[in-house]
Amino acid sequence: DGPASPPDRASQCFSCHGADGNPSLSAVPIIAGQQPEYLQDTLNAYRSGLRGGGRAIVMQEIAKDLSDDDIAALSAWFGDQK
Amino acid sequence: DGPASPPDRASQCFSCHGADGNPSLSAVPIIAGQQPEYLQDTLNAYRSGLRGGGRAIVMQEIAKDLSDDDIAALSAWFGDQK
Repeated sequence: DGPASPPDRASQCFSCHGADGNPSLSAVPIIAGQQPEYLQDTLNAYRSGLRGGGRAIVMQEIAKDLSDDDIAALSAWFGDQK
Repeated sequence: DGPASPPDRASQCFSCHGADGNPSLSAVPIIAGQQPEYLQDTLNAYRSGLRGGGRAIVMQEIAKDLSDDDIAALSAWFGDQK
């Protein structure tokens, strides 16, 4: 399971995805409780540019500065939220 | 809210996403309770090819045969699942 307090890099996720992964913006996906492996694959795909199109550019910009450890920590933490 | 029984086209989603949108496959996203507007935007992006890369080809193949009504019904129904 993910640690109790959010990982360092999580704060940049909060503006769109909400402080616990439950967004107030209706077009933004809920990531609280999402499958960690899916979150990890998706962040890796944004970082590598494999996943693109439309608003993906926002995620590509954010993901390109994330390390493997960041991606693992963020995926575990948000996956662990309700 | 979405109707109680799943829309016609939902059966092709079940094999990966599970019969109520909670997948057994750890790399597949949970879509039960996901934001309907996000689901709708995402299905439209797969249908138009805007979202691509990696496993997206599976979703592109499925989405290309969906009508606007199908996409709206699927998004509402899965968004309504727990």
